[in-house]
Amino acid sequence: MAVRTPDPDPDWTPGPDDAPPPASAANPGWLSDIELMEARRRLPLLYVEAVPVRVDGMGQVIEVGILLRATATGQMTRTLVSGRVLYGETLRDALYRHLEKDLGPMAFPQLPPAPTPFSVAEYFPMPGVGKYHDDRQHAVSLAYVVPVTGTCDPRQDALELTWMTPGEAASAEISDDMEGGRGALLRAALASVGVLP
Amino acid sequence: MAVRTPDPDPDWTPGPDDAPPPASAANPGWLSDIELMEARRRLPLLYVEAVPVRVDGMGQVIEVGILLRATATGQMTRTLVSGRVLYGETLRDALYRHLEKDLGPMAFPQLPPAPTPFSVAEYFPMPGVGKYHDDRQHAVSLAYVVPVTGTCDPRQDALELTWMTPGEAASAEISDDMEGGRGALLRAALASVGVLP
Amino acid sequence: MAVRTPDPDPDWTPGPDDAPPPASAANPGWLSDIELMEARRRLPLLYVEAVPVRVDGMGQVIEVGILLRATATGQMTRTLVSGRVLYGETLRDALYRHLEKDLGPMAFPQLPPAPTPFSVAEYFPMPGVGKYHDDRQHAVSLAYVVPVTGTCDPRQDALELTWMTPGEAASAEISDDMEGGRGALLRAALASVGVLP
Amino acid sequence: MAVRTPDPDPDWTPGPDDAPPPASAANPGWLSDIELMEARRRLPLLYVEAVPVRVDGMGQVIEVGILLRATATGQMTRTLVSGRVLYGETLRDALYRHLEKDLGPMAFPQLPPAPTPFSVAEYFPMPGVGKYHDDRQHAVSLAYVVPVTGTCDPRQDALELTWMTPGEAASAEISDDMEGGRGALLRAALASVGVLP
Repeated sequence: MAVRTPDPDPDWTPGPDDAPPPASAANPGWLSDIELMEARRRLPLLYVEAVPVRVDGMGQVIEVGILLRATATGQMTRTLVSGRVLYGETLRDALYRHLEKDLGPMAFPQLPPAPTPFSVAEYFPMPGVGKYHDDRQHAVSLAYVVPVTGTCDPRQDALELTWMTPGEAASAEISDDMEGGRGALLRAALASVGVLP
Repeated sequence: MAVRTPDPDPDWTPGPDDAPPPASAANPGWLSDIELMEARRRLPLLYVEAVPVRVDGMGQVIEVGILLRATATGQMTRTLVSGRVLYGETLRDALYRHLEKDLGPMAFPQLPPAPTPFSVAEYFPMPGVGKYHDDRQHAVSLAYVVPVTGTCDPRQDALELTWMTPGEAASAEISDDMEGGRGALLRAALASVGVLP
Repeated sequence: MAVRTPDPDPDWTPGPDDAPPPASAANPGWLSDIELMEARRRLPLLYVEAVPVRVDGMGQVIEVGILLRATATGQMTRTLVSGRVLYGETLRDALYRHLEKDLGPMAFPQLPPAPTPFSVAEYFPMPGVGKYHDDRQHAVSLAYVVPVTGTCDPRQDALELTWMTPGEAASAEISDDMEGGRGALLRAALASVGVLP
Repeated sequence: MAVRTPDPDPDWTPGPDDAPPPASAANPGWLSDIELMEARRRLPLLYVEAVPVRVDGMGQVIEVGILLRATATGQMTRTLVSGRVLYGETLRDALYRHLEKDLGPMAFPQLPPAPTPFSVAEYFPMPGVGKYHDDRQHAVSLAYVVPVTGTCDPRQDALELTWMTPGEAASAEISDDMEGGRGALLRAALASVGVLP
């Protein structure tokens, strides 16, 4: 099974209803599929990931949003909001772009004031190097917990966003469905906001 | 000059328009002035502090709110939102209560999802022990950066809430006016959200 | 069963082989048993807690130390290094003192450069307020992961320090034995250093 | 003046006395100068940076190490330990490799147990995008405070490692000499360990 760091094709060949990433037209940081494939074999790629959450009036996390999607072979997997940082793009812009891409334009994510991630996840294509894996590439991902206040409407290849309690999100059942070992990253997210059981 | 960890009298003898702190009526965690004075000579007291900020649409801090007030001797000093954690009160409840006390009921603070402070400030009554001091007591304060989205209307003994840029807030001029050495705490707050010059 | 935030009697009435806490003789921050009991019903008490770990040459946590001890009724429970911060004592001094008290003088703990805890645990005597509880008091604990490089020799009422892998430490079996709900705090510690499964 | 994210040539064409980076011989993650130049115009490159410190017996930072070096035009500049993360290399391995490269083999750095950086610095080649700049490339750097316990002997193009107090390191004079705006990163490092004045 091909477990992948989410980075769907439309990211690279945006359709008519996709806003181009910031500054992409004006700078050379745009890769053809072949060039990206080459880069993936030579350099660690920089990613951002987000765990969307709902908070109560006191800022306490009460629900966690997990994406459900189908792989090319029809298998169901769960994952987090995730995507590559483009050349010339700030981390905040990348985080916002991928939240909008995965949750729709009405999610109203509240990006955290602090640029420091709750964790840094290292994905390796070769087995056994770390606890996260991605058979396409070596990716390093800065992961954030992001409260969303609006309505989420997953786009692209995500079938659904499932809201669950922290306890459910931390369960072995959910972990087993998470792509690339992200169950551990999800539990680290819960721990960082004080709701890991 | 009496530099104090802000903890105004109404905190201890709430007037008719002050909501009692959670559970205070039902439990014995209510101290007379004399008892509090005794405790202050025997135990480190637990405080929370908040640096109110305004963020832009991407979560980036653009302004910082600093309280201005007059001491008993008429001297002007600057300080942060600050106050004691009561018996039986959660940190979130204490943080929210003091934000409302110092910024008014329409400030709409967004408490952070993570319970971990950006810094822990230790205030000692004796000089030279640490970089923060409070001549009344040994206080340990958990400090948070808190975005506010509403209208701030300082109450009690604060004269004014001044909004300033991160650069202004980090200046030596502002630091010199801050009570108890809090200029360093304010700069640490700015650093934690990536806007310390 | 009396689940307690560890704070053994010798802390309050030190025996001949116990070094007095810093500055205790010279200041008034010394409480009789009755006074301490009074304070416990009126104020949140400030604690520090430590999760002792062994790291490899690259700083990666490979083992976690958990204390095993017997309660007054003979029941076995597990806990972390923990204890109260005294009047006039810095957090570093308190952390060091309790590490030495629980692990012996040859543990050589390496206190972290950053004063920010990986988590803040709130213990309440009343059930249902938070996920940590302590039937004696309201305690707020700043928790740190502390590498130790020497030989641990538990003193006082601890029977044994058990070293285990992060995976074992995160297990439900160990959690069930932990006092006051500290299994969640232990897992948060593992998450903060990137080794929570 | 060409201000650069330090990444000297020997990094890419190791001489006989340089250990090859992990796994480099066996994988394709090795770039020619031309390929690296191409990648620099297309992708954000991932870096690690370290602020070497000396700590006292209680873990408190007492001195900070800053590298001094001469640019190609003979100008003196100051910088931090810094370098690129290679394909297939873990962040810890990259951090260790660059610490050894810049401080020599006897520095005995103690990598932090937590993989989370104290800050993430974004360097852009175009002016005005953020507060850090690098005219060669878009680089994103994970920055860590690293205690060193041995003897530092700067190698390669660094002339000297200067130890200074936190107060000196935070000064405007030192900041003005730091490459790429790293004075702000250095102050954030000091704040993260509680010693920013």
